[in-house]
Amino acid sequence: MQLLEDRILRDGKVAPGNVLRVDSFINHCMDIDLLEKLAEEFYRLFSDRKVDRVLTIEASGIAIATLVARLFRVPLVFAKKSKSSNIPDTVYSCPVKSYTHGNVNTILVTRDYLKAGENVLLIDDFLAHGEALRGLIDVVEQAGATVVGAGILVEKAYQQGGSDIRARGIQVESLARVAAMDDVTGTVEFVKD
Amino acid sequence: MQLLEDRILRDGKVAPGNVLRVDSFINHCMDIDLLEKLAEEFYRLFSDRKVDRVLTIEASGIAIATLVARLFRVPLVFAKKSKSSNIPDTVYSCPVKSYTHGNVNTILVTRDYLKAGENVLLIDDFLAHGEALRGLIDVVEQAGATVVGAGILVEKAYQQGGSDIRARGIQVESLARVAAMDDVTGTVEFVKD
Repeated sequence: MQLLEDRILRDGKVAPGNVLRVDSFINHCMDIDLLEKLAEEFYRLFSDRKVDRVLTIEASGIAIATLVARLFRVPLVFAKKSKSSNIPDTVYSCPVKSYTHGNVNTILVTRDYLKAGENVLLIDDFLAHGEALRGLIDVVEQAGATVVGAGILVEKAYQQGGSDIRARGIQVESLARVAAMDDVTGTVEFVKD
Repeated sequence: MQLLEDRILRDGKVAPGNVLRVDSFINHCMDIDLLEKLAEEFYRLFSDRKVDRVLTIEASGIAIATLVARLFRVPLVFAKKSKSSNIPDTVYSCPVKSYTHGNVNTILVTRDYLKAGENVLLIDDFLAHGEALRGLIDVVEQAGATVVGAGILVEKAYQQGGSDIRARGIQVESLARVAAMDDVTGTVEFVKD
């Protein structure tokens, strides 16, 4: 999506260690006007699907997921991250490795908030290795619900997450797909449609 | 606000240890239609103030804060929680004790995202002892910005946080003010206007 790509080129920063910083407009300070336009694009992309619920993961996916759930007029659930290995049996859970933080979180969703037979749209800000998205898909499947698709703001398309999950037959729509970036020159290139 | 009080009476649960659970509609599974109406009420309550920015704290305040920032058409910043004591000098930070989790988090906001002279509206889901809100006020003051008010969904009015912060001259607007609750009978009573 041109709007998001242009904004990343203007305000994104490439940092050492393969990091694309978009915290001035997406995931620390949030440009809500921008996020609303991106939410409208997700609504358009998934408007042919029946969506009963939106699911994201704390914390930086919650803002965009809120705006998407608002347009679909459905509840939003966010998976919580817990470092505890002591999981109550009233939750669905899945271990998720974080490459950013170098640890493993267990993500948790209370069983009451994902129901068998429902259609769930996943929303998150980033997709790279795909660990978080795989965790969300796992908890949806544990609940006997169906993933109708995943809407992602920024995908690092040179990493495996997106193609692995698409290969499972899941519709993954990423509004900006980064093909390459360079922290020395600061350049970001996007996948051409 | 009657709408929120009625919903708490219907769907809230009083758990042992002075816990009011509203996770079926506010802070795990989120009823976005409800939150939008609550955001409209905050917009009305603070409509006479100049608001340049909304500030909340991860994770459960982000949804309502997103909807409030959308109405004011201003950016939303969320303070991050870090358990690290190793704070970079590019952030404003403040230690915040969590009674819920029994630990101390340092909350962090990157300096670029709070600017001297700005008017900041604080939004959060809960106010009890007031630790989180005091931390947010502290980082706003570190930045040389001004707190124009605080919008809270649920205040435990029998605890000190709200009255302490109001005594500092800050306008705190809580949409439901719990006067008492009892986990044996399950009853919740609200402060009468």
